[in-house]
Amino acid sequence: MAGNSYGTIFKITTFGESHGKGIGVIIDGCPSGVSIDESVIQHELDRRKPGQSAIVTQRKEADQVVIQSGIFEGKSTGTPISLYIANKDQKSKDYSHIADKFRPSHADFTYAKKYGNRDYRGGGRSSARETAARVAAGAIAKQILNSHGITVEAYVSRVGKLSLAKSYDQLDLSLTESNILRCPDPEMADEMIAYIKDIRKEGDTVGGMVSCVIKGCPVGLGEPVFDKLHAELGKAMLSINAVKGFEYGSGFGCLEMKGSEHNDQFVQDGDKVSTTTNYSGGVQGGISNGMDIYFNVAFKPVATIMRDQQSIDKSGNEATVTGKGRHDPCVVPRAVPIVDAMAALVIVDFLLRQRLYDNVE
Amino acid sequence: MAGNSYGTIFKITTFGESHGKGIGVIIDGCPSGVSIDESVIQHELDRRKPGQSAIVTQRKEADQVVIQSGIFEGKSTGTPISLYIANKDQKSKDYSHIADKFRPSHADFTYAKKYGNRDYRGGGRSSARETAARVAAGAIAKQILNSHGITVEAYVSRVGKLSLAKSYDQLDLSLTESNILRCPDPEMADEMIAYIKDIRKEGDTVGGMVSCVIKGCPVGLGEPVFDKLHAELGKAMLSINAVKGFEYGSGFGCLEMKGSEHNDQFVQDGDKVSTTTNYSGGVQGGISNGMDIYFNVAFKPVATIMRDQQSIDKSGNEATVTGKGRHDPCVVPRAVPIVDAMAALVIVDFLLRQRLYDNVE
Amino acid sequence: MAGNSYGTIFKITTFGESHGKGIGVIIDGCPSGVSIDESVIQHELDRRKPGQSAIVTQRKEADQVVIQSGIFEGKSTGTPISLYIANKDQKSKDYSHIADKFRPSHADFTYAKKYGNRDYRGGGRSSARETAARVAAGAIAKQILNSHGITVEAYVSRVGKLSLAKSYDQLDLSLTESNILRCPDPEMADEMIAYIKDIRKEGDTVGGMVSCVIKGCPVGLGEPVFDKLHAELGKAMLSINAVKGFEYGSGFGCLEMKGSEHNDQFVQDGDKVSTTTNYSGGVQGGISNGMDIYFNVAFKPVATIMRDQQSIDKSGNEATVTGKGRHDPCVVPRAVPIVDAMAALVIVDFLLRQRLYDNVE
Amino acid sequence: MAGNSYGTIFKITTFGESHGKGIGVIIDGCPSGVSIDESVIQHELDRRKPGQSAIVTQRKEADQVVIQSGIFEGKSTGTPISLYIANKDQKSKDYSHIADKFRPSHADFTYAKKYGNRDYRGGGRSSARETAARVAAGAIAKQILNSHGITVEAYVSRVGKLSLAKSYDQLDLSLTESNILRCPDPEMADEMIAYIKDIRKEGDTVGGMVSCVIKGCPVGLGEPVFDKLHAELGKAMLSINAVKGFEYGSGFGCLEMKGSEHNDQFVQDGDKVSTTTNYSGGVQGGISNGMDIYFNVAFKPVATIMRDQQSIDKSGNEATVTGKGRHDPCVVPRAVPIVDAMAALVIVDFLLRQRLYDNVE
Repeated sequence: MAGNSYGTIFKITTFGESHGKGIGVIIDGCPSGVSIDESVIQHELDRRKPGQSAIVTQRKEADQVVIQSGIFEGKSTGTPISLYIANKDQKSKDYSHIADKFRPSHADFTYAKKYGNRDYRGGGRSSARETAARVAAGAIAKQILNSHGITVEAYVSRVGKLSLAKSYDQLDLSLTESNILRCPDPEMADEMIAYIKDIRKEGDTVGGMVSCVIKGCPVGLGEPVFDKLHAELGKAMLSINAVKGFEYGSGFGCLEMKGSEHNDQFVQDGDKVSTTTNYSGGVQGGISNGMDIYFNVAFKPVATIMRDQQSIDKSGNEATVTGKGRHDPCVVPRAVPIVDAMAALVIVDFLLRQRLYDNVE
Repeated sequence: MAGNSYGTIFKITTFGESHGKGIGVIIDGCPSGVSIDESVIQHELDRRKPGQSAIVTQRKEADQVVIQSGIFEGKSTGTPISLYIANKDQKSKDYSHIADKFRPSHADFTYAKKYGNRDYRGGGRSSARETAARVAAGAIAKQILNSHGITVEAYVSRVGKLSLAKSYDQLDLSLTESNILRCPDPEMADEMIAYIKDIRKEGDTVGGMVSCVIKGCPVGLGEPVFDKLHAELGKAMLSINAVKGFEYGSGFGCLEMKGSEHNDQFVQDGDKVSTTTNYSGGVQGGISNGMDIYFNVAFKPVATIMRDQQSIDKSGNEATVTGKGRHDPCVVPRAVPIVDAMAALVIVDFLLRQRLYDNVE
Repeated sequence: MAGNSYGTIFKITTFGESHGKGIGVIIDGCPSGVSIDESVIQHELDRRKPGQSAIVTQRKEADQVVIQSGIFEGKSTGTPISLYIANKDQKSKDYSHIADKFRPSHADFTYAKKYGNRDYRGGGRSSARETAARVAAGAIAKQILNSHGITVEAYVSRVGKLSLAKSYDQLDLSLTESNILRCPDPEMADEMIAYIKDIRKEGDTVGGMVSCVIKGCPVGLGEPVFDKLHAELGKAMLSINAVKGFEYGSGFGCLEMKGSEHNDQFVQDGDKVSTTTNYSGGVQGGISNGMDIYFNVAFKPVATIMRDQQSIDKSGNEATVTGKGRHDPCVVPRAVPIVDAMAALVIVDFLLRQRLYDNVE
Repeated sequence: MAGNSYGTIFKITTFGESHGKGIGVIIDGCPSGVSIDESVIQHELDRRKPGQSAIVTQRKEADQVVIQSGIFEGKSTGTPISLYIANKDQKSKDYSHIADKFRPSHADFTYAKKYGNRDYRGGGRSSARETAARVAAGAIAKQILNSHGITVEAYVSRVGKLSLAKSYDQLDLSLTESNILRCPDPEMADEMIAYIKDIRKEGDTVGGMVSCVIKGCPVGLGEPVFDKLHAELGKAMLSINAVKGFEYGSGFGCLEMKGSEHNDQFVQDGDKVSTTTNYSGGVQGGISNGMDIYFNVAFKPVATIMRDQQSIDKSGNEATVTGKGRHDPCVVPRAVPIVDAMAALVIVDFLLRQRLYDNVE
């Protein structure tokens, strides 16, 4: 109800603020008997953590996960799994200068008005730090998916005007982690990295796109009419900080196509049904059809810039917001594991929901 | 759980198939004491109904709504409101030729696999006919919003390559209903209508875009972190048949912008806080900031075309799907009231959720 | 949220008022492929309907069910099932004399205050007529349970001071329907019926108890810690009009027992685990243990009596409520199918929830 | 879905096992701006903690609460409140002797079968230790209720055959905490305490009853038809370990009453509507009517006794369960704060749900 939970069966609830004691997540609904490797959770958190490379924020957070409950002798017990990450490098004083000011395009103003008060330290609950809890939960979701032969792979496909011309199936996604940007085209990655470094020098930020592909998803996932597979993916992606748009399959490109071009022709492919094209993006009528599911997510330029900006304070007086602190010039390198995690959470939830049908194939 | 409900407080559950006895919706959570005008519901249904103009399907359905419960002496009682629309013009025989075949880019295959059986008559539950129930519920939501000074206005902004150059604030939205396309630029509407007529003659279909603006929304709506206002709008839009993409505010356009350009500067505007630009699209940190909320929705070309297509049947044998029946060459004219309805349902739900906070301003 | 839904997976939402157009229920989450016999639904409704015997209200309602959606060619499709019962014998004028008065121990006062208005005709939504919708949904639940070898059997065990001395396992429950009271001890039934007739002559009403046993329930149903099997049974029973108490297994009788007496000893019984006694009532730690589940439900004397009573009207003035209309002198004969239905709805929901675990035995 | 959450708006999710790292609770939906006193939370936990007196288990647990999130500068921020209690005095070796055995009338067997594995240390998740998390959350609920003039007062009303003759309104409830049993009749308390000491010496346990009264509840709380106020109270109470029965108002006593005796007559009492009797227990039609809400909860004798018992192990072989460890001879003294807490959680949730109506008085 208050918006801190996601999922229906594999249900996560995140808690915590960027500069409080810590953040965490409760997973309620993880089936029992699932083998859970704590190091996989830590690995995913390390992909998201600040300070990991030259093109992300230089804040240092260890983001060390502690499993508080729900796992016994290496396996899930079917009871709630609690994951906790203590906050370490909180420089709350960094934020004292903006306690009464509304930073442009931040959540300061809306939180203050909605809740009547706000934890101004580092954005409090509105901070992207909250996504670490999602990544931790997503790492468990990914372990379940992998045991079902389902993979989720996100990567950076665009930074500013620099855009990958190739689609996911023309790229070697095993190269995604080969560079600090997480772009599977190393040459383009170099260009993008150089561009981000220039932007940082200007004290500015830039937008970027993360693309994602889900392979191995069985036919039948998704719950029409409202909880269509792509509708939940869309909500999950749009719930990530800084996201402005979502498209799947042909996406906005469908606008210029005719039905005769866009329709995906069914063919029998051994004992599997396949389509000759995949403009549907692996989803028809809100239900997975067994083809690859792929989508794009647009991230706006980070709102915190290293320049002075005009704004107002909570009394309505004009105020200058000074550019200070340690922030990301472009969000996409650290957004990749978050997109991965949210996609995994969506799919694992639908996988469990599908258990409710007798006639699953 | 099974995906037929939307909303948390103002919760709707739709039921019914395109060729069964009828379709309908239960609204549970409408506050008591709301004046409800049945003719407004019927008006919205008439905007969505088939057969209304030369550029939509020529099926005839009266789509007459009956209020079965929840309203007494013209006002809501606080108990469930049941709205029912009997099916009239079901030509089930039209569909006998495709009972065993999977139509390309339709939900035939995925429904058959998910549920193990399907009502093949006119798509059954996967038919866009289901959206009539949403429109009926949305008409009640709109009446509540209007009494709070909130308006929702959708319109056609693109058909194929024909695109409105102007944004919503440069258009006269009172002209939307002045033409059968529901495009507020009458000249462009004429072009688009002519194009759709050509496409129909070819037996083909084309994609299109619906844009929408919500004005008068108070500050504070939206429930971070997962149920962000725009995330719910995105889910709601993506849950509409044929939608492939959603963007709000700057949308995918944010990719080429820098933070220094994209940030919306706060100014005090009398007793109201305003921003000088509105790339945020009226939402910051997932919460409405009082500015206009605007977004775009991409609809793919209708999958049913009047041409023969190759496909397979449920035994995996090759089969020809013959183009027959009465269908829309472009979905957008009838999609406008559906986008309206879903947007209204999202906003009314958040409006009620906001009642749970003490400090609403 | 507004209280008109029950269940998590097999989720029902009831709607309708006693003197509106009709009442009904949507079942969302019935798995696909379930054979559903409409005559079984009608049979259960006939057991609940008014006018069926000399000891119940003499109102006449056919309570004819119509299936509006969700069933195709005799089987559930996995989409929402809508069941509708039109109202026929509404004598709204019977209620005009109490439109402004608050009947003692009725919901008139609380509904008026909660919702700010109320449909005073026959109690509107607070009427026990709403339970017909539950019975219809329960009839589908029972068909699913029966196909799993699970039976639900309720019966009258007490009327006023007349109480069955025998427990469910000492009775022949096949005799429950042999008399109009639905008491499996025909001799006691005669006494109870005679007593109810006397009470009716006095213009008075009397309380009674319904007992219920669920046999064949597999081990493992129930979701600790909050959704314990018996906790959901308790809520379901307490949600029935006029219920004042619920106990299962040893119930309030446990108060006088010691642990050494009350503990149920486990024994291996072939390939099944059994207990030598069953004070646990088939539930341990909130989860079914494979033994019979049994419980008692206390119904208060019907509030509508055929005598004048002192009360107040909505302006706070003293007013006499005159005994008029056609009502039940004791609710239990018609409560039996309602208890059956609610118990079946609870169990079928847990049966489906249990599908979410990998390791069910 | 998995049963670890309670509430719809003020929603709690508990986690943790008796012998894992710790236990805790997330409260999602606490309104912002609520003053929260940490010492009140600790005080309630101290009332529940083991080792507090001669008639409860002699295990020692400090049960020190830590607030991890959601409170800033002494007030709730509207974001999730996380409360954590580290486990200290876990003597896991105490349980090694029963790792493979099923203790009679415990949850060992059902957990093992449901989940396929279990944390056998101290009952794991099925341990009553989980209720500490409820008590912590309830302490916040009580602070909200108190600021609305609503009080919740539970007390021991029966131990074995020793029963308070007086009802709640004939007792001085300020005496409840005057003795270690939490019975407001000091003389009867002495008798009951002596009896419990005798039972302990026998190595046995005994059942008992907790009664509770809620005063100051406004008219209108409760959500018919399924979420009736007393139905949620019933579920909440039945979800507490060891509870076998629930009754409210006249309860099972209604069985012997006639309608003419049981009906509560309305009278105007200044500007308030009152009833001359209160057999309804403050609830009519599932909605509070402004009178005191009172109910009884039956607790079975604790299953762990200090005697050897016959049982089986997980291979189905006969096994002796030896009486060891430190346990309660009667659960009621420590159950009082748990009943308090669950009642407070039910009422605060309905109080917030009522904000959704326009016409609250």
